[in-house]
This record gives sequence, structure tokens and C-alpha cells, in this order.
Amino acid sequence: MNTSLAHAQHLDQRDPLAHFRERFVITDPEVIYLDGNSLGRLPKITADRLRQVTEHEWGERLIRGWGEGWFTAPQRLGAQIAQLIGAQPDEVIVTDSTSVNFFKLVIAALQARPGRSQIITDDLNFPSDVYIVQGALKLLGGRHQVRVIPSPDGLTLSPEAVAPHLSPEVALVTFTHTAFKSGYLYDLERITEMAHAAGALMLWDLSHSVGAVPVALNAAGVDLAVGCTYKYLNGGPGAPAFLYVRRDLQEQLLSPIWGWFGQKDQFDMRLDYAPGPGLQRFLAGTPPILALTAVEGGIALMLEAGMERLRAKSVAQTEYLIELWEAELQPLGMTLNSPREAARRGSHVSLGHPEALRIDRALIEDLRVIPDFRYPDNIRLGIAPIYTRYADIYEAVQRLKRVLVERLYEKYPTERPDVT
Amino acid sequence: MNTSLAHAQHLDQRDPLAHFRERFVITDPEVIYLDGNSLGRLPKITADRLRQVTEHEWGERLIRGWGEGWFTAPQRLGAQIAQLIGAQPDEVIVTDSTSVNFFKLVIAALQARPGRSQIITDDLNFPSDVYIVQGALKLLGGRHQVRVIPSPDGLTLSPEAVAPHLSPEVALVTFTHTAFKSGYLYDLERITEMAHAAGALMLWDLSHSVGAVPVALNAAGVDLAVGCTYKYLNGGPGAPAFLYVRRDLQEQLLSPIWGWFGQKDQFDMRLDYAPGPGLQRFLAGTPPILALTAVEGGIALMLEAGMERLRAKSVAQTEYLIELWEAELQPLGMTLNSPREAARRGSHVSLGHPEALRIDRALIEDLRVIPDFRYPDNIRLGIAPIYTRYADIYEAVQRLKRVLVERLYEKYPTERPDVT
Repeated sequence: MNTSLAHAQHLDQRDPLAHFRERFVITDPEVIYLDGNSLGRLPKITADRLRQVTEHEWGERLIRGWGEGWFTAPQRLGAQIAQLIGAQPDEVIVTDSTSVNFFKLVIAALQARPGRSQIITDDLNFPSDVYIVQGALKLLGGRHQVRVIPSPDGLTLSPEAVAPHLSPEVALVTFTHTAFKSGYLYDLERITEMAHAAGALMLWDLSHSVGAVPVALNAAGVDLAVGCTYKYLNGGPGAPAFLYVRRDLQEQLLSPIWGWFGQKDQFDMRLDYAPGPGLQRFLAGTPPILALTAVEGGIALMLEAGMERLRAKSVAQTEYLIELWEAELQPLGMTLNSPREAARRGSHVSLGHPEALRIDRALIEDLRVIPDFRYPDNIRLGIAPIYTRYADIYEAVQRLKRVLVERLYEKYPTERPDVT
Repeated sequence: MNTSLAHAQHLDQRDPLAHFRERFVITDPEVIYLDGNSLGRLPKITADRLRQVTEHEWGERLIRGWGEGWFTAPQRLGAQIAQLIGAQPDEVIVTDSTSVNFFKLVIAALQARPGRSQIITDDLNFPSDVYIVQGALKLLGGRHQVRVIPSPDGLTLSPEAVAPHLSPEVALVTFTHTAFKSGYLYDLERITEMAHAAGALMLWDLSHSVGAVPVALNAAGVDLAVGCTYKYLNGGPGAPAFLYVRRDLQEQLLSPIWGWFGQKDQFDMRLDYAPGPGLQRFLAGTPPILALTAVEGGIALMLEAGMERLRAKSVAQTEYLIELWEAELQPLGMTLNSPREAARRGSHVSLGHPEALRIDRALIEDLRVIPDFRYPDNIRLGIAPIYTRYADIYEAVQRLKRVLVERLYEKYPTERPDVT
């Protein structure tokens, strides 16, 4: 392992995606930002486009904007995201939050499997998904149960661990494709196949995958998916989320939220709801145009870079980070809380330490490295291959080492910060 | 009635709110915009603030933005809207769309009245609200029925027309406070009192009221409300909506969408949902920060102008418009589809004509007046007192008269346009 800065710089020089970094707003080169898995950076084109839509389209065109592109924004952006996740253009829309979209699909799936009473998920899933399932089950009157499979090691869940839980009672299987904490990458193909063999529907949360890991929903026959656009897609804080429904299922399913944008012949203004064709029925209220505008630029950059090249760089960078950890941080007591095998790892690397909370704070406040902390003892280092440099990773590890060696964290209190 | 331009200009000169017009982006003074009841204009401060939040907060502060004001944006904006609708600061949050918020409150209300099986609404309600109710009832297993009271005249619904439908079977009564088509203003106080006397909860949709009509939710003891921010509040296309829950009810109610932003001790990341205190439990996914940013400037302008002054100008302007209609348009066959009595009228005036669809189109395309059309024969002229001038109303009526006299509409086809 070459642990020199020169080597990191050499890797950056050879990086075919290096020039994409210039397409982002980066005002403070001293800050090492490794939290693109939580909130991606601002693409320059997005700042321009937001100004254009706000000042020209809203400010000047006013209500006419609806006829000039706004009305179809959920579908237009969906068709672009479809290219990143191996889906057809009419199988994805962008609207509402991930939680709200997940709610719609959970309810729709359970109602499409009326004789079955179980939902399968696991304890590595993002809590919001588990909460939504719990709320959906209460709403449906307690006829269903959720089974939360415990991960055997707290980091991973193999298809073999899922298998014993599948039965003809299972209506829906749902996991997060890349685990938010460990970065473990589930075997989407095999688990989907197993769910189908049991007659269940399969719903994947792609929040930590889209834009970082190639996903082939159609090839795997996936039924349902949701995902976030503010992480690797760089869509802005709280940006609207996407949902995917396989084409042949779309008209068999019904959203529980019957809003006017889901209504067939919306402007007839009739009072009896009739779901619109295809995915339109999964729209509810008026789509958030300014927020949708902010999503478009990031997706375009991903498409331009190409998912294969992004994944190749992501794998090389997480490998590089893990090698540096092995050489520099493991001896100082940091553990690797992510899979060592690249094929089973997303684009962030989790490092554990009993003092992780205070280490995280010292990194941010003293040394200007911004990672991400997950309770209770996990520091996530997010690689966003579209803008992260090898030199950033090198420098972050050096600063992390300094926090540990010089015990810079000891001056901070042990209570948890209040925000993500 | 003085039907001269000079009179309109005189009224503008005497208007104490006239200077607020300069606070909006108005690029084309030839366009007469009377659709602020559908999409309000862009406040100059909002364009500035969006640039600031995008380029500085997102672009530079990145994830740190969550600790620097983003996290509490739904509550902060809610507290500002509370001042416009007679509520306490902790009784309103801004999040999701009107339809999604309405869904949450309908379900929460029905679950809080478990022994009761009826929902009362009417056929003047905005279709999306009726659809949401229909979907909620299906979701809850068909144990409830919705009764849609027919308006006796298609324009209004008096408390007397509501009375016979109230009984101990009613769980929830819900109307839109200002009817989207006729602009009829419901008697919020009396109907709320009647609903309460029957033991039902009362849910008002304030979408066409907030920022145009004073609303006193606390004084009337209203239980629940939702409303839109992209109309009179000028929050931008598809801007996030607000919801209100009376303080003493908040912890008795539960949102059906159990997202992580509604979770108590959100960053513990535990897997059992426990609703957060107060209105936090009605949040679901991550709040849309850019969209919320766009809402703030418009609310500030409303608070600065003051609801009493805005209402006084709105009443004077709708009166003025109706008087011009009487003098100039009624003789040409246009009907008044809004209440004549100012106290029962919101801030838009609907005019009917068998050729309304084509008249609307001629107005927009030939004469640069932008009203709003509602199927099948209704032209809505929206008064946004914060920026509408008497001279705009005068000019719109003159151009409308010209469309009728010169039959400018006859060259247009009779099919309906596809967007709002």
C-alpha cells in the first residue's frame, strides 16, 4: 500500500472523471466533504437553472409555466432517472418525499396481495422505512404483521438469511439496497427472485444506491422501488424522491392518496376519483416545481459520466480508503463497519470507534473534514465519485489519524448533535 | 358607477397598499395578471433568498445547513402562517402538498372518532379533497360513508343547508372555506360550531383563503385545517402546503404516514416508531428546503401588509369589478357566478358565459389578460390585493368587453386546454 500524498495525486491525474469536479460549486477547497451520501453538492448548472425557472418561468411566464414544461416534470425527470436504474422511461416518476412514496407503494402492494399477511424487512433498513411499514399496518387494521429479520452480524444480510422467512403468507419483501449504516450492498437479483418464488412483491429502497451503484430493475424483474435524489444525485436538501412501478403492474395497483394530479381527466373536475393511466395515479398534489428543477442538473451529470464509470471509480476509491484505514487507522483502534468485499459494498465506508461521536465533531470543527455520523459509534465516509478526489480521501485519513493520535476529540462533550 | 380609467387610476392613487406592487417581479406591464388565486407572483425577496439558500447555504455550508435553520423550517414557516389564520405558533407546520396533508388529517380525524361512520362535505369542494376522502374511506375498509351535500344553487352552501346532515354518526365535517369555483365564503364560525355540537371534528381547507381573507381558527375553535401557499401567499409553483391542528388535539391524533421526521428522538435511529411531541408527528420525510425557502418571502409581505388591510382592498376591488361587470359585461351575456354580498365572497370573481373556454383563450392569446378557467363555463378573475391595481381590473374588463363585442373568441377551437 502506497500511503503517500503523491500516490493520491497520481490517482487523481489518471481519473477519467476528474473534470466533473469543476461542474460543482466548491467555494472552500480546505473543506474535505465526505457527506455526499447524505447531501450531495450543488451542481453549477442547477444554480443557473433554478435562477432561470424562478426568475423567468415563474416570474415572467407565471401560470403559463404549467403548459410550458412544469406539468410533465415528474414524468420527465422520472424518465431520466429510469436510465440510471435500468427501467423504462414510463416506469419512474419524481414527486413527494421518499417516505410518502414508500407509504404509497407499501399500501398498494399489500392491497394487491389480499390473502397474505406478512411483510418481510430487516433491522439494517433505514428506520423511516420500518416506521412507514408499522404505520401502514396499523392503518390497515392489524391484519398484517411485519417481520424484521435481524442481521446476523449487524452489517450484512445474505439471501440465505432471508430464505427461511419466505412463505405463502408473505405479501411484500422490502429492503434498502445499500444499507444506510454499513454500506452493505444487497443481492438485489437473488432476493427479488426469492420473493417472487414465494409469490410476494419486492420493493427496494434505492436511496443510497442511485447515482453510486448500477441498478438493473427491469433485468431483475423488480416490482417496486423508491429512492432519494438529494444524496448521490445532488438534487438539494429535501429534494423530491422518485418511485418506480414495473410497467405491467402499474394499472393493477392503486395509490392510497387519491389527489387531483392522479385523477384521470384532471381538469374535468368531476367528484368521483378515477385513477389516471400508468404511473400518473401515483401523483397526489401539485408537483413542487422549484424543487423538481433542482433535481434535473444532477441527474444530467450522472448520465453524462455514466453509471459504469461512476461505479468503477467508487469501487477504486472505497478500496483505496479501506487500504488507508488498514495502514493508518486500524492500528489506532478504528474498526471497519463496511464489507471488505467490493462487490457487496456501496459508495460509503463506515468506520467505528467508541469515541466516534466526539471524533466526528473534532473532524468537523477542528480539521474541516465533513463526514457523517450515525448513532451510536459510526462515522460514515461518503464517496461521491462524481466529485470526490483521491487526494480528499488521503487528506481525510491523515486528519482522522491526527484526531486520534492527538486526542483532539477529548475536549468535546458526549451528547449527540441534533441533526442529520 | 364611474366606468372611466381616470376613476380606476384615482382609486390606485388612494390605495394604501399600492407600493407593495414594487416588491414583486413584474417584467411585462402589458400583461394583466388576474390568476394570483392559482399561482401568485414572484416576490423580489424570494428570488434573492432562493439564490442565497442555494448558492450559500447548500453550495457552501452543505450538510451543516441542517443545523443552521433548515431543520426547523417547517415549524418556523408554520409559526408565520399561524399569524395569518388566527392560530398559535405551534399549531401550524409547512410540509408536503395540500393533498398529502389533507390525507393525513382526514385519516387522523376518523381514527379519533372510532364509533362514527360519516364524513360530510359538499359538491363545491375542491375535487382533490373529495378524492382524498374517497381514497381514505376505501383504505379504512369501507366502514365509513362520505355524504356530498349538493349546493342548492351551485354557488353557495349556507349553514342551514348543512344542518340536516349533522348527526351523532358524523365523525368529520370538511369544506373549503372559500369555494374554488364561485369564491363563496363559508360561515366558518357557525359551521364549526354546528359540527362540534354534533360531536364531529371540523377540517377546513383554507387554500383560497389564506392571504386573502382573514381567518380566525382559534376564535372559532377549529380543530383541523390545511392550505396552499402558492396562491395568495406567492410561494411558487407547487410550493409546500401547511397544516393546522388545534394544540389540545395534537397529541390525541396520529398521522398515518410514520416518517422519520415525525419520530421522537429521530437520530436514535431506533426501529420502533414513537410519534414526536406536538405537530412534529405530522412531518413524514425530509422537508423540502429549497421549496420552503420560496414560501418565506411571500408570507413576510402578507404580514407586513396586514390581513385587515388586504381584506379591505380585496373587498373594494371585487366590488369594483362586479360593478364594472354590471355596467359593461352583463349586457353582453356574462353572468356573475360569485356571491353579490361582499361578506360571503373571497378574493376572486367568477363570470360565466357559454363560450367561456374560448373567451378565456382569446383574452390570453390576443389581449394579454391572464384569468383562470374552470370547466365548463367559468372564468375566474383573481384579485391579489397585494399587487393587483384598480387599473388592472378596469383594463381587464375593457379587454373582456372587446373579446365579446368583436367576437374574438370565434377563431379558437372548443376543446379544453390541458393544464391549470
